[in-house]
Amino acid sequence: MSQATSTPVFVKGFKAAGVHAGLKADGALDMALIYSETPCVAAGVFTTNTVKAAPVLVDQETLAKNNTHIRAVIVNTKCANACTGQQGLDNARQMQRWTAEKLGIGEDEVLVMSTGVIGTQLPMEKIQRGIGLAVDALGEHHWEAAAQGIMTTDTRPKLETFASQHGYRFAGIAKGAGMIAPNMATMLSVMASDADMSLSSRTPAFHPQEFLPSLAGDSFNKIAVDGDTSTNDTLLLLVNGASKRWSNADAFDEELRDVAIPLAQKIVRDGEGATKFITLHIKGAPDNSAARQIGNTIATSPLVKTAFYGGDANWGRIVAAAGRSGVAVIPEKMSLTYASPDQQQSVLLFTGGVPANYDEAAATALAKAEEIVVTLDCGMGTGDATIWTCDLSHDYVSINGHYRS
Amino acid sequence: MSQATSTPVFVKGFKAAGVHAGLKADGALDMALIYSETPCVAAGVFTTNTVKAAPVLVDQETLAKNNTHIRAVIVNTKCANACTGQQGLDNARQMQRWTAEKLGIGEDEVLVMSTGVIGTQLPMEKIQRGIGLAVDALGEHHWEAAAQGIMTTDTRPKLETFASQHGYRFAGIAKGAGMIAPNMATMLSVMASDADMSLSSRTPAFHPQEFLPSLAGDSFNKIAVDGDTSTNDTLLLLVNGASKRWSNADAFDEELRDVAIPLAQKIVRDGEGATKFITLHIKGAPDNSAARQIGNTIATSPLVKTAFYGGDANWGRIVAAAGRSGVAVIPEKMSLTYASPDQQQSVLLFTGGVPANYDEAAATALAKAEEIVVTLDCGMGTGDATIWTCDLSHDYVSINGHYRS
Repeated sequence: MSQATSTPVFVKGFKAAGVHAGLKADGALDMALIYSETPCVAAGVFTTNTVKAAPVLVDQETLAKNNTHIRAVIVNTKCANACTGQQGLDNARQMQRWTAEKLGIGEDEVLVMSTGVIGTQLPMEKIQRGIGLAVDALGEHHWEAAAQGIMTTDTRPKLETFASQHGYRFAGIAKGAGMIAPNMATMLSVMASDADMSLSSRTPAFHPQEFLPSLAGDSFNKIAVDGDTSTNDTLLLLVNGASKRWSNADAFDEELRDVAIPLAQKIVRDGEGATKFITLHIKGAPDNSAARQIGNTIATSPLVKTAFYGGDANWGRIVAAAGRSGVAVIPEKMSLTYASPDQQQSVLLFTGGVPANYDEAAATALAKAEEIVVTLDCGMGTGDATIWTCDLSHDYVSINGHYRS
Repeated sequence: MSQATSTPVFVKGFKAAGVHAGLKADGALDMALIYSETPCVAAGVFTTNTVKAAPVLVDQETLAKNNTHIRAVIVNTKCANACTGQQGLDNARQMQRWTAEKLGIGEDEVLVMSTGVIGTQLPMEKIQRGIGLAVDALGEHHWEAAAQGIMTTDTRPKLETFASQHGYRFAGIAKGAGMIAPNMATMLSVMASDADMSLSSRTPAFHPQEFLPSLAGDSFNKIAVDGDTSTNDTLLLLVNGASKRWSNADAFDEELRDVAIPLAQKIVRDGEGATKFITLHIKGAPDNSAARQIGNTIATSPLVKTAFYGGDANWGRIVAAAGRSGVAVIPEKMSLTYASPDQQQSVLLFTGGVPANYDEAAATALAKAEEIVVTLDCGMGTGDATIWTCDLSHDYVSINGHYRS
């Protein structure tokens, strides 16, 4: 396993670009393009919000017609192209068309992504110029620029690469999201691999669609609340076969996780105003779905999150959040523990319905650390869930109080 | 109708007290007692959280045995007596017993309320002393002190009184709550009336229990998220008959609202760090329950609330929140309006799936005002709901990051 290094990122047959099209006032990169010299098998996972942005509708429509020869993904920031009606759909298709024309490929070989403010139309002149600039800027080592070109309130680009021992490679970029419930702000990610799925001995060969939902569940959806999605959330996986190498489905599945999980965790670590990374393990719930429901209620509780921000071991708020999760938890069966990531320090706070006899100083030390592992055992069954979350800080309020300006 | 005036509050046969028992470090009033010289018919509405504080369990048990001759309510702050197991139950019953002994009444004639930190045991010496002080301090005009004695992060006491034209009176006190989802922090309220329900021509006579759930639904639950309750939330209504006057059920019901609605709105206006009061009308939902679900999702969205704090007319976040509410809203059928409380200014922001052609300066002026009326018409049916909420500010984070200290 080799995680991202200083070696320039390279995934055979793919080129990337990040450019400044004039969307961001400060001159930062604001559009990105991913391009493959050969057709990709491709799949997408999209927001479950019933208010879907135009690019989401266009991508769903495009992939329904063609998920075997996708060539490019064009992305803009500053405008989500959501709540924009027919004009928004026309504009998303125009983005697709301009990108196809400039690249000399088919319209239905291009996917589009947008992120930014809801309820305004795309500034199409700038978009058109950005597409031209992006095509001209394409380079096989420009993944970092592409990662920068999709940032909104992110403070740093999110790029992960992975070179399989089986001779193919991966690159993935992502942009972050709000931090109360990450999917409430837009999460975008494009993952690319030069693995050759056609070499599989299975007929038909494997397709990205077989891997993507489970991958999302074990990575980006661990930072999300079920159904708690933005208008634009999109995760794409493009596989072009250029390496002419393949391993097997299990290995590929595992390798995808080695890219997606670090990307997802980077989103949490770079959450708006986040100062802490919290891993929340829910155990002993009636089933996995109930565990997730309990975990999401805790992870999105502003009272819990502000207590973490303050470094206050105010664990009663966690128990209270579990109690209002909709799962009929029983305090007498619960136990709650704070621990350090390496599990070297661990404090049992609540068990059998009463506070454990713990050392307040030790609990506070754990609560003040930058990384905290919280384990709530409900003592009811075998359901479990893990959720990554962060705290709620003054900076979160500042960032989101004036996002549009 | 006469709302609260400078006239000392008086409800015949009731006495109140607020005292400093040494629970709050700053010397502020930290316990309260409400007492009736004659037995009250009484009812309570309690948290739906499955993790119920000891006083909630004790009150439910007490009212199940006796809801026709309640005499007193004792309240402490700084400790919620929640997640405290058998010792917590024993302590809540001891509070009940000490109060009864000191007042010379029966144990099962006393209700108890606690608010504060979860997961610590009550400091029983201070509680005992506070009960003694409170009984000694009882006075018929001391409602304001009682309202002070139940405050936690509230910045001002919440007291409402009402003198019916039918010759009886009301007084109500309440303590506030967090402001993301008000019921996540504890909401406590005691309402008292000297109306004489026994004079009703109906047999059996009316009982507070017949009025309380509907009253809660039209007042305190309008600021709450269904099921999103703290461990301690309690609303009590005590009616002692001392005025020897009665009107009829409809009038009494209406008068109760004239006390409870202003109290509930005061909780929102004094929400932790709140700078704005937002009235959210959801109309045209498939049914009232769906309207409430949409409204609660919007009202508890940190992205929506921070935009209000920033005075940013970022209405797309409201539409996006509706879209992830679990109700299958259709953007093309929605319309969204901001207005001033007097409806003199009104701006249609979104309709038919696209931004309306509105004046940004006018929208911003409304978004920057201290009171905003937001109306979302879903265009689907006849369900509606009204929710009162407030914004999410830097001060909210400060208050809740260090609540225990």
